[in-house]
Amino acid sequence: MKRYRKEYEFSYALGMTVTFELLLSRPKSLRAVYVHPAVTKNDNYFKLIEKCESLGISPTESEKAFNILSPKENCFVIGEFEKYSMALDEGEPHIALVSPMNAGNVGTIMRTALGLGYENIAIIEPCTDPFSPEVVRSSMGAIFSLNVEVFKSIDEYRARFEHKLYPFMLTASLPIEQVEFVPPYALVFGNEAHGLPEEFAALGQSVIIPCTDKVDSLNLSIAAAIGMYEARKRTV
Amino acid sequence: MKRYRKEYEFSYALGMTVTFELLLSRPKSLRAVYVHPAVTKNDNYFKLIEKCESLGISPTESEKAFNILSPKENCFVIGEFEKYSMALDEGEPHIALVSPMNAGNVGTIMRTALGLGYENIAIIEPCTDPFSPEVVRSSMGAIFSLNVEVFKSIDEYRARFEHKLYPFMLTASLPIEQVEFVPPYALVFGNEAHGLPEEFAALGQSVIIPCTDKVDSLNLSIAAAIGMYEARKRTV
Repeated sequence: MKRYRKEYEFSYALGMTVTFELLLSRPKSLRAVYVHPAVTKNDNYFKLIEKCESLGISPTESEKAFNILSPKENCFVIGEFEKYSMALDEGEPHIALVSPMNAGNVGTIMRTALGLGYENIAIIEPCTDPFSPEVVRSSMGAIFSLNVEVFKSIDEYRARFEHKLYPFMLTASLPIEQVEFVPPYALVFGNEAHGLPEEFAALGQSVIIPCTDKVDSLNLSIAAAIGMYEARKRTV
Repeated sequence: MKRYRKEYEFSYALGMTVTFELLLSRPKSLRAVYVHPAVTKNDNYFKLIEKCESLGISPTESEKAFNILSPKENCFVIGEFEKYSMALDEGEPHIALVSPMNAGNVGTIMRTALGLGYENIAIIEPCTDPFSPEVVRSSMGAIFSLNVEVFKSIDEYRARFEHKLYPFMLTASLPIEQVEFVPPYALVFGNEAHGLPEEFAALGQSVIIPCTDKVDSLNLSIAAAIGMYEARKRTV
Protein backbone atom coordinates (compact mmCIF):
# COMPACT_ATOMS: atom_id res chain seq x y z
CA MET A 1 0.00 0.00 0.00
CA LYS A 2 1.72 3.15 -1.22
CA ARG A 3 0.73 6.65 -2.18
CA TYR A 4 -0.08 6.56 -5.92
CA ARG A 5 2.54 7.44 -8.51
CA LYS A 6 2.05 7.61 -12.25
CA GLU A 7 4.81 5.09 -13.00
CA TYR A 8 3.20 2.34 -10.92
CA GLU A 9 1.42 -0.50 -12.67
CA PHE A 10 -1.55 -0.20 -10.38
CA SER A 11 -3.92 2.48 -9.16
CA TYR A 12 -6.81 2.94 -6.75
CA ALA A 13 -10.56 3.40 -6.88
CA LEU A 14 -11.47 5.57 -3.88
CA GLY A 15 -14.94 5.14 -2.43
CA MET A 16 -17.74 2.60 -2.44
CA THR A 17 -19.42 3.66 -5.71
CA VAL A 18 -16.20 3.80 -7.68
CA THR A 19 -14.99 0.48 -6.29
CA PHE A 20 -18.31 -1.09 -7.25
CA GLU A 21 -17.89 0.06 -10.84
CA LEU A 22 -14.42 -1.47 -10.82
CA LEU A 23 -15.76 -4.81 -9.58
CA LEU A 24 -18.55 -4.85 -12.14
CA SER A 25 -16.70 -3.60 -15.22
CA ARG A 26 -13.04 -4.62 -14.76
CA PRO A 27 -13.13 -7.59 -12.35
CA LYS A 28 -10.02 -9.16 -13.88
CA SER A 29 -7.96 -6.07 -13.04
CA LEU A 30 -8.88 -6.11 -9.35
CA ARG A 31 -5.94 -6.75 -6.99
CA ALA A 32 -7.33 -5.96 -3.55
CA VAL A 33 -10.13 -4.26 -1.68
CA TYR A 34 -9.53 -2.29 1.53
CA VAL A 35 -12.29 -1.51 3.98
CA HIS A 36 -12.08 1.13 6.72
CA PRO A 37 -12.89 -0.20 10.22
CA ALA A 38 -15.51 2.57 10.56
CA VAL A 39 -17.37 1.70 7.35
CA THR A 40 -21.16 1.68 7.70
CA LYS A 41 -22.29 -1.90 7.23
CA ASN A 42 -25.36 -1.19 5.13
CA ASP A 43 -26.89 -3.05 2.18
CA ASN A 44 -24.37 -1.63 -0.26
CA TYR A 45 -21.53 -2.77 1.96
CA PHE A 46 -22.83 -6.34 2.08
CA LYS A 47 -23.39 -6.34 -1.68
CA LEU A 48 -19.79 -5.23 -2.13
CA ILE A 49 -18.46 -7.97 0.14
CA GLU A 50 -20.56 -10.55 -1.67
CA LYS A 51 -19.29 -9.36 -5.04
CA CYS A 52 -15.67 -9.46 -3.80
CA GLU A 53 -16.13 -13.01 -2.56
CA SER A 54 -17.63 -14.12 -5.87
CA LEU A 55 -14.41 -12.83 -7.44
CA GLY A 56 -12.24 -14.69 -4.93
CA ILE A 57 -11.02 -11.52 -3.18
CA SER A 58 -11.22 -11.10 0.61
CA PRO A 59 -11.46 -7.43 1.59
CA THR A 60 -8.71 -6.30 3.99
CA GLU A 61 -9.76 -4.23 6.98
CA SER A 62 -7.13 -1.50 7.38
CA GLU A 63 -7.17 2.06 8.62
CA LYS A 64 -3.64 2.63 7.38
CA ALA A 65 -4.61 2.28 3.72
CA PHE A 66 -6.99 5.21 4.15
CA ASN A 67 -4.47 7.37 5.97
CA ILE A 68 -2.06 6.92 3.08
CA LEU A 69 -4.43 7.14 0.14
CA SER A 70 -7.29 9.31 1.22
CA PRO A 71 -6.26 11.25 4.33
CA LYS A 72 -8.81 14.03 3.95
CA GLU A 73 -11.67 12.35 2.22
CA ASN A 74 -14.84 10.79 3.37
CA CYS A 75 -13.88 7.44 1.90
CA PHE A 76 -14.36 4.01 3.49
CA VAL A 77 -13.68 1.56 0.67
CA ILE A 78 -10.70 1.42 -1.69
CA GLY A 79 -10.23 -0.90 -4.67
CA GLU A 80 -6.69 -1.51 -5.91
CA PHE A 81 -6.42 -2.45 -9.57
CA GLU A 82 -3.83 -3.32 -12.17
CA LYS A 83 -3.72 -0.77 -14.97
CA TYR A 84 -4.80 -2.19 -18.32
CA SER A 85 -4.49 -1.06 -21.90
CA MET A 86 -7.47 -0.11 -23.97
CA ALA A 87 -7.64 0.49 -27.70
CA LEU A 88 -10.18 2.85 -29.22
CA ASP A 89 -12.94 1.36 -31.36
CA GLU A 90 -12.50 2.35 -35.02
CA GLY A 91 -16.15 2.42 -35.94
CA GLU A 92 -17.32 4.60 -33.05
CA PRO A 93 -17.20 8.39 -32.52
CA HIS A 94 -14.26 9.59 -30.42
CA ILE A 95 -13.68 12.37 -27.95
CA ALA A 96 -10.11 13.70 -28.24
CA LEU A 97 -8.77 15.73 -25.33
CA VAL A 98 -5.61 17.64 -26.22
CA SER A 99 -3.35 18.29 -23.21
CA PRO A 100 -5.98 18.29 -20.47
CA MET A 101 -4.24 19.03 -17.15
CA ASN A 102 -7.03 18.98 -14.59
CA ALA A 103 -7.94 15.56 -13.22
CA GLY A 104 -11.42 16.66 -12.18
CA ASN A 105 -12.21 17.86 -15.71
CA VAL A 106 -11.01 14.64 -17.31
CA GLY A 107 -13.00 12.50 -14.88
CA THR A 108 -16.14 14.59 -15.35
CA ILE A 109 -15.78 14.37 -19.15
CA MET A 110 -15.48 10.58 -18.87
CA ARG A 111 -18.69 10.37 -16.86
CA THR A 112 -20.52 12.72 -19.23
CA ALA A 113 -19.25 10.82 -22.28
CA LEU A 114 -20.52 7.50 -20.94
CA GLY A 115 -23.86 9.10 -20.09
CA LEU A 116 -24.25 10.60 -23.57
CA GLY A 117 -23.17 7.43 -25.38
CA TYR A 118 -19.51 8.12 -26.24
CA GLU A 119 -17.29 5.24 -25.12
CA ASN A 120 -13.96 6.09 -26.77
CA ILE A 121 -11.68 8.81 -25.41
CA ALA A 122 -8.32 9.75 -26.91
CA ILE A 123 -6.02 11.80 -24.69
CA ILE A 124 -3.10 13.63 -26.28
CA GLU A 125 0.09 14.20 -24.25
CA PRO A 126 1.20 16.15 -22.31
CA CYS A 127 -1.75 15.44 -20.05
CA THR A 128 -2.90 14.55 -16.58
CA ASP A 129 -2.55 10.81 -15.86
CA PRO A 130 -5.90 9.27 -16.81
CA PHE A 131 -5.42 6.42 -14.31
CA SER A 132 -4.76 8.65 -11.30
CA PRO A 133 -7.11 8.08 -8.36
CA GLU A 134 -8.38 11.67 -8.84
CA VAL A 135 -9.48 11.02 -12.43
CA VAL A 136 -10.94 7.63 -11.52
CA ARG A 137 -12.91 9.18 -8.67
CA SER A 138 -14.11 12.21 -10.65
CA SER A 139 -15.32 9.83 -13.34
CA MET A 140 -17.43 8.09 -10.66
CA GLY A 141 -16.02 4.87 -12.08
CA ALA A 142 -17.10 5.63 -15.68
CA ILE A 143 -13.46 5.08 -16.72
CA PHE A 144 -13.97 1.34 -16.13
CA SER A 145 -16.63 1.22 -18.87
CA LEU A 146 -14.73 3.29 -21.45
CA ASN A 147 -11.90 2.82 -23.90
CA VAL A 148 -9.29 5.44 -23.01
CA GLU A 149 -6.08 5.63 -25.02
CA VAL A 150 -3.17 8.05 -24.62
CA PHE A 151 -1.32 9.32 -27.71
CA LYS A 152 1.99 11.15 -27.90
CA SER A 153 0.61 13.68 -30.39
CA ILE A 154 -2.43 14.43 -32.54
CA ASP A 155 -0.37 13.14 -35.49
CA GLU A 156 0.00 9.76 -33.83
CA TYR A 157 -3.76 9.69 -33.35
CA ARG A 158 -4.42 10.73 -36.97
CA ALA A 159 -2.05 8.07 -38.29
CA ARG A 160 -4.19 5.43 -36.60
CA PHE A 161 -7.70 6.71 -37.25
CA GLU A 162 -9.49 8.23 -40.21
CA HIS A 163 -12.04 10.03 -38.10
CA LYS A 164 -13.18 13.42 -39.37
CA LEU A 165 -11.99 15.96 -36.78
CA TYR A 166 -14.21 18.66 -35.31
CA PRO A 167 -11.91 20.91 -33.25
CA PHE A 168 -13.79 23.11 -30.78
CA MET A 169 -12.19 26.56 -30.96
CA LEU A 170 -13.11 30.08 -29.87
CA THR A 171 -11.79 31.32 -33.22
CA ALA A 172 -14.01 28.99 -35.28
CA SER A 173 -16.65 30.62 -37.46
CA LEU A 174 -19.22 27.81 -37.68
CA PRO A 175 -21.63 27.61 -34.72
CA ILE A 176 -22.33 24.07 -33.57
CA GLU A 177 -26.02 24.43 -34.49
CA GLN A 178 -24.98 24.62 -38.16
CA VAL A 179 -22.53 21.71 -38.21
CA GLU A 180 -23.25 18.28 -39.66
CA PHE A 181 -21.23 15.64 -37.86
CA VAL A 182 -20.22 12.94 -40.34
CA PRO A 183 -19.28 9.59 -38.79
CA PRO A 184 -16.82 8.36 -37.92
CA TYR A 185 -15.92 11.61 -36.20
CA ALA A 186 -13.86 12.92 -33.31
CA LEU A 187 -14.80 15.92 -31.20
CA VAL A 188 -11.53 17.63 -30.28
CA PHE A 189 -11.16 19.81 -27.17
CA GLY A 190 -8.08 21.76 -26.03
CA ASN A 191 -6.35 22.51 -22.77
CA GLU A 192 -8.21 24.26 -19.91
CA ALA A 193 -6.18 27.46 -20.04
CA HIS A 194 -5.21 27.79 -23.70
CA GLY A 195 -7.73 25.87 -25.78
CA LEU A 196 -6.47 24.32 -29.02
CA PRO A 197 -3.48 25.66 -30.94
CA GLU A 198 -4.53 27.62 -34.04
CA GLU A 199 -3.19 24.93 -36.43
CA PHE A 200 -6.01 22.59 -35.42
CA ALA A 201 -8.38 24.68 -37.55
CA ALA A 202 -6.72 23.16 -40.65
CA LEU A 203 -7.21 19.57 -39.45
CA GLY A 204 -10.99 19.48 -39.82
CA GLN A 205 -14.19 21.49 -39.44
CA SER A 206 -13.65 23.82 -36.52
CA VAL A 207 -16.71 24.51 -34.39
CA ILE A 208 -17.73 27.16 -31.86
CA ILE A 209 -20.33 26.96 -29.10
CA PRO A 210 -22.03 30.36 -29.24
CA CYS A 211 -21.58 32.32 -26.00
CA THR A 212 -22.27 35.81 -24.75
CA ASP A 213 -19.31 38.19 -24.64
CA LYS A 214 -19.59 38.27 -20.85
CA VAL A 215 -17.35 35.24 -20.33
CA ASP A 216 -14.02 34.44 -21.99
CA SER A 217 -14.98 30.82 -22.53
CA LEU A 218 -16.87 27.95 -20.97
CA ASN A 219 -15.19 25.53 -18.57
CA LEU A 220 -13.64 22.59 -20.50
CA SER A 221 -15.93 19.92 -19.07
CA ILE A 222 -18.97 22.12 -19.80
CA ALA A 223 -17.92 22.82 -23.40
CA ALA A 224 -17.25 19.11 -23.94
CA ALA A 225 -20.68 18.22 -22.53
CA ILE A 226 -22.54 20.67 -24.78
CA GLY A 227 -20.42 19.55 -27.73
CA MET A 228 -21.16 15.87 -27.13
CA TYR A 229 -24.85 16.51 -26.52
CA GLU A 230 -25.35 18.58 -29.68
CA ALA A 231 -23.14 16.45 -31.94
CA ARG A 232 -25.21 13.36 -31.09
CA LYS A 233 -28.30 15.19 -32.27
CA ARG A 234 -26.61 16.53 -35.40
CA THR A 235 -24.96 13.32 -36.59
CA VAL A 236 -25.94 12.60 -40.17
CA MET B 1 -7.71 40.24 7.06
CA LYS B 2 -9.36 37.09 8.39
CA ARG B 3 -10.17 33.64 7.12
CA TYR B 4 -13.62 33.90 5.49
CA ARG B 5 -16.76 33.05 7.40
CA LYS B 6 -20.29 33.01 6.08
CA GLU B 7 -21.59 35.48 8.64
CA TYR B 8 -19.11 38.20 7.65
CA GLU B 9 -20.34 41.14 5.62
CA PHE B 10 -17.42 40.84 3.22
CA SER B 11 -15.76 38.18 1.14
CA TYR B 12 -12.77 37.70 -1.15
CA ALA B 13 -12.05 37.35 -4.84
CA LEU B 14 -8.97 35.09 -5.11
CA GLY B 15 -6.77 35.56 -8.15
CA MET B 16 -6.07 38.17 -10.79
CA THR B 17 -8.89 37.26 -13.21
CA VAL B 18 -11.54 37.10 -10.53
CA THR B 19 -10.39 40.36 -8.92
CA PHE B 20 -10.50 42.04 -12.33
CA GLU B 21 -14.12 41.00 -12.78
CA LEU B 22 -14.87 42.44 -9.34
CA LEU B 23 -13.25 45.77 -10.26
CA LEU B 24 -15.12 45.96 -13.56
CA SER B 25 -18.57 44.78 -12.50
CA ARG B 26 -18.93 45.69 -8.82
CA PRO B 27 -16.50 48.58 -8.23
CA LYS B 28 -18.65 50.12 -5.51
CA SER B 29 -18.38 46.95 -3.42
CA LEU B 30 -14.58 46.88 -3.47
CA ARG B 31 -12.95 47.38 -0.05
CA ALA B 32 -9.30 46.50 -0.63
CA VAL B 33 -6.88 44.81 -2.99
CA TYR B 34 -3.95 42.71 -1.71
CA VAL B 35 -0.95 41.90 -3.87
CA HIS B 36 1.60 39.17 -3.12
CA PRO B 37 5.23 40.40 -3.07
CA ALA B 38 6.08 37.68 -5.62
CA VAL B 39 3.40 38.72 -8.15
CA THR B 40 4.59 38.81 -11.76
CA LYS B 41 4.49 42.44 -12.84
CA ASN B 42 3.15 41.88 -16.35
CA ASP B 43 0.68 43.88 -18.45
CA ASN B 44 -2.32 42.49 -16.60
CA TYR B 45 -0.77 43.48 -13.31
CA PHE B 46 -0.27 47.07 -14.42
CA LYS B 47 -3.80 47.21 -15.82
CA LEU B 48 -5.08 46.02 -12.46
CA ILE B 49 -3.11 48.66 -10.56
CA GLU B 50 -4.32 51.35 -12.92
CA LYS B 51 -7.92 50.24 -12.50
CA CYS B 52 -7.53 50.21 -8.69
CA GLU B 53 -6.13 53.72 -8.72
CA SER B 54 -8.97 54.97 -10.91
CA LEU B 55 -11.29 53.67 -8.18
CA GLY B 56 -9.30 55.38 -5.44
CA ILE B 57 -7.95 52.13 -3.96
CA SER B 58 -4.24 51.58 -3.29
CA PRO B 59 -3.30 47.90 -3.42
CA THR B 60 -1.64 46.61 -0.24
CA GLU B 61 1.44 44.46 -0.63
CA SER B 62 1.16 41.64 1.93
CA GLU B 63 2.27 38.05 2.06
CA LYS B 64 0.26 37.42 5.20
CA ALA B 65 -3.08 37.92 3.43
CA PHE B 66 -2.20 35.05 1.11
CA ASN B 67 -1.07 32.75 3.90
CA ILE B 68 -4.41 33.23 5.60
CA LEU B 69 -6.75 33.19 2.61
CA SER B 70 -5.08 31.06 0.00
CA PRO B 71 -2.36 28.98 1.66
CA LYS B 72 -2.18 26.30 -1.01
CA GLU B 73 -3.15 28.13 -4.13
CA ASN B 74 -1.29 29.74 -6.89
CA CYS B 75 -2.86 33.10 -6.19
CA PHE B 76 -1.10 36.48 -6.17
CA VAL B 77 -3.94 39.00 -6.08
CA ILE B 78 -6.92 39.16 -3.72
CA GLY B 79 -9.85 41.55 -3.87
CA GLU B 80 -11.86 42.13 -0.70
CA PHE B 81 -15.46 43.18 -1.24
CA GLU B 82 -18.56 44.07 0.72
CA LYS B 83 -21.38 41.62 0.10
CA TYR B 84 -24.34 43.19 -1.68
CA SER B 85 -27.92 42.16 -2.22
CA MET B 86 -29.29 41.37 -5.64
CA ALA B 87 -32.91 40.90 -6.66
CA LEU B 88 -33.85 38.64 -9.56
CA ASP B 89 -35.26 40.26 -12.68
CA GLU B 90 -38.96 39.38 -13.13
CA GLY B 91 -39.02 39.42 -16.90
CA GLU B 92 -35.99 37.19 -17.44
CA PRO B 93 -35.59 33.40 -17.32
CA HIS B 94 -34.25 32.06 -14.02
CA ILE B 95 -32.06 29.18 -12.98
CA ALA B 96 -33.20 27.77 -9.62
CA LEU B 97 -30.73 25.60 -7.71
CA VAL B 98 -32.37 23.65 -4.91
CA SER B 99 -29.98 22.85 -2.04
CA PRO B 100 -26.71 22.81 -3.97
CA MET B 101 -23.90 21.92 -1.54
CA ASN B 102 -20.77 21.97 -3.67
CA ALA B 103 -19.14 25.36 -4.12
CA GLY B 104 -17.36 24.30 -7.32
CA ASN B 105 -20.64 23.24 -8.93
CA VAL B 106 -22.39 26.48 -8.02
CA GLY B 107 -19.51 28.59 -9.33
CA THR B 108 -19.30 26.59 -12.56
CA ILE B 109 -23.06 26.92 -13.07
CA MET B 110 -22.76 30.70 -12.59
CA ARG B 111 -20.06 30.93 -15.25
CA THR B 112 -22.01 28.71 -17.66
CA ALA B 113 -25.21 30.67 -17.06
CA LEU B 114 -23.54 33.97 -17.87
CA GLY B 115 -21.98 32.43 -20.99
CA LEU B 116 -25.31 31.06 -22.20
CA GLY B 117 -27.24 34.25 -21.46
CA TYR B 118 -28.93 33.51 -18.13
CA GLU B 119 -28.30 36.29 -15.62
CA ASN B 120 -30.67 35.42 -12.78
CA ILE B 121 -29.96 32.61 -10.34
CA ALA B 122 -32.22 31.62 -7.45
CA ILE B 123 -30.64 29.45 -4.77
CA ILE B 124 -32.91 27.60 -2.34
CA GLU B 125 -31.69 26.88 1.20
CA PRO B 126 -30.09 24.83 2.67
CA CYS B 127 -27.21 25.55 0.32
CA THR B 128 -23.54 26.35 0.03
CA ASP B 129 -22.81 30.04 0.67
CA PRO B 130 -22.92 31.71 -2.77
CA PHE B 131 -20.53 34.46 -1.64
CA SER B 132 -17.82 32.10 -0.38
CA PRO B 133 -14.39 32.62 -1.96
CA GLU B 134 -14.67 29.10 -3.43
CA VAL B 135 -17.88 29.89 -5.31
CA VAL B 136 -16.57 33.29 -6.41
CA ARG B 137 -13.39 31.70 -7.70
CA SER B 138 -15.12 28.77 -9.44
CA SER B 139 -17.40 31.26 -11.15
CA MET B 140 -14.27 32.97 -12.53
CA GLY B 141 -15.90 36.20 -11.37
CA ALA B 142 -19.16 35.58 -13.27
CA ILE B 143 -21.00 36.08 -9.97
CA PHE B 144 -20.21 39.80 -10.20
CA SER B 145 -22.26 40.07 -13.42
CA LEU B 146 -25.25 38.06 -12.22
CA ASN B 147 -28.27 38.54 -10.00
CA VAL B 148 -28.07 35.83 -7.36
CA GLU B 149 -30.77 35.62 -4.70
CA VAL B 150 -31.12 33.11 -1.86
CA PHE B 151 -34.60 31.90 -0.81
CA LYS B 152 -35.60 29.99 2.32
CA SER B 153 -37.76 27.58 0.32
CA ILE B 154 -39.16 26.99 -3.14
CA ASP B 155 -42.48 28.31 -1.78
CA GLU B 156 -40.86 31.63 -0.92
CA TYR B 157 -39.53 31.77 -4.48
CA ARG B 158 -42.91 30.86 -5.98
CA ALA B 159 -44.69 33.50 -3.89
CA ARG B 160 -42.48 36.16 -5.50
CA PHE B 161 -42.33 34.98 -9.11
CA GLU B 162 -44.85 33.60 -11.56
CA HIS B 163 -42.26 31.79 -13.63
CA LYS B 164 -43.32 28.49 -15.12
CA LEU B 165 -41.14 25.84 -13.46
CA TYR B 166 -39.26 23.14 -15.38
CA PRO B 167 -37.85 20.77 -12.74
CA PHE B 168 -35.07 18.53 -14.08
CA MET B 169 -35.70 15.06 -12.67
CA LEU B 170 -34.50 11.54 -13.43
CA THR B 171 -38.10 10.37 -12.96
CA ALA B 172 -39.53 12.80 -15.52
CA SER B 173 -41.10 11.33 -18.63
CA LEU B 174 -40.65 14.20 -21.09
CA PRO B 175 -37.21 14.37 -22.75
CA ILE B 176 -35.84 17.89 -23.05
CA GLU B 177 -35.90 17.66 -26.87
CA GLN B 178 -39.72 17.56 -26.71
CA VAL B 179 -40.25 20.41 -24.23
CA GLU B 180 -41.42 23.91 -25.15
CA PHE B 181 -40.05 26.43 -22.70
CA VAL B 182 -42.64 29.17 -22.18
CA PRO B 183 -41.25 32.46 -20.82
CA PRO B 184 -40.93 33.59 -18.18
CA TYR B 185 -39.57 30.26 -17.02
CA ALA B 186 -37.24 28.80 -14.39
CA LEU B 187 -35.06 25.75 -14.94
CA VAL B 188 -34.96 23.94 -11.59
CA PHE B 189 -32.08 21.64 -10.59
CA GLY B 190 -31.73 19.58 -7.41
CA ASN B 191 -28.97 18.68 -4.99
CA GLU B 192 -25.82 16.88 -6.20
CA ALA B 193 -26.49 13.64 -4.35
CA HIS B 194 -30.28 13.40 -4.26
CA GLY B 195 -31.67 15.46 -7.13
CA LEU B 196 -35.06 17.10 -6.60
CA PRO B 197 -37.66 15.74 -4.16
CA GLU B 198 -40.49 13.91 -5.96
CA GLU B 199 -43.05 16.64 -5.12
CA PHE B 200 -41.36 19.02 -7.56
CA ALA B 201 -42.95 17.06 -10.42
CA ALA B 202 -46.30 18.63 -9.46
CA LEU B 203 -44.92 22.19 -9.55
CA GLY B 204 -44.41 22.39 -13.30
CA GLN B 205 -43.37 20.45 -16.40
CA SER B 206 -40.70 18.00 -15.29
CA VAL B 207 -37.93 17.34 -17.78
CA ILE B 208 -35.31 14.63 -18.29
CA ILE B 209 -32.03 14.81 -20.16
CA PRO B 210 -31.83 11.45 -21.96
CA CYS B 211 -28.83 9.38 -20.85
CA THR B 212 -27.56 5.87 -21.35
CA ASP B 213 -28.20 3.42 -18.52
CA LYS B 214 -24.44 3.21 -17.92
CA VAL B 215 -24.37 6.17 -15.53
CA ASP B 216 -26.74 6.94 -12.64
CA SER B 217 -26.95 10.59 -13.58
CA LEU B 218 -24.92 13.46 -14.98
CA ASN B 219 -22.92 15.76 -12.72
CA LEU B 220 -25.08 18.71 -11.56
CA SER B 221 -23.09 21.39 -13.38
CA ILE B 222 -23.16 19.30 -16.57
CA ALA B 223 -26.91 18.69 -16.40
CA ALA B 224 -27.50 22.40 -15.75
CA ALA B 225 -25.32 23.33 -18.74
CA ILE B 226 -27.14 21.00 -21.14
CA GLY B 227 -30.48 22.16 -19.71
CA MET B 228 -29.63 25.85 -20.18
CA TYR B 229 -28.20 25.28 -23.66
CA GLU B 230 -31.20 23.33 -24.95
CA ALA B 231 -33.86 25.47 -23.22
CA ARG B 232 -32.50 28.58 -24.95
CA LYS B 233 -33.00 26.88 -28.28
CA ARG B 234 -36.46 25.59 -27.40
CA THR B 235 -37.91 28.80 -25.96
CA VAL B 236 -41.15 29.66 -27.71
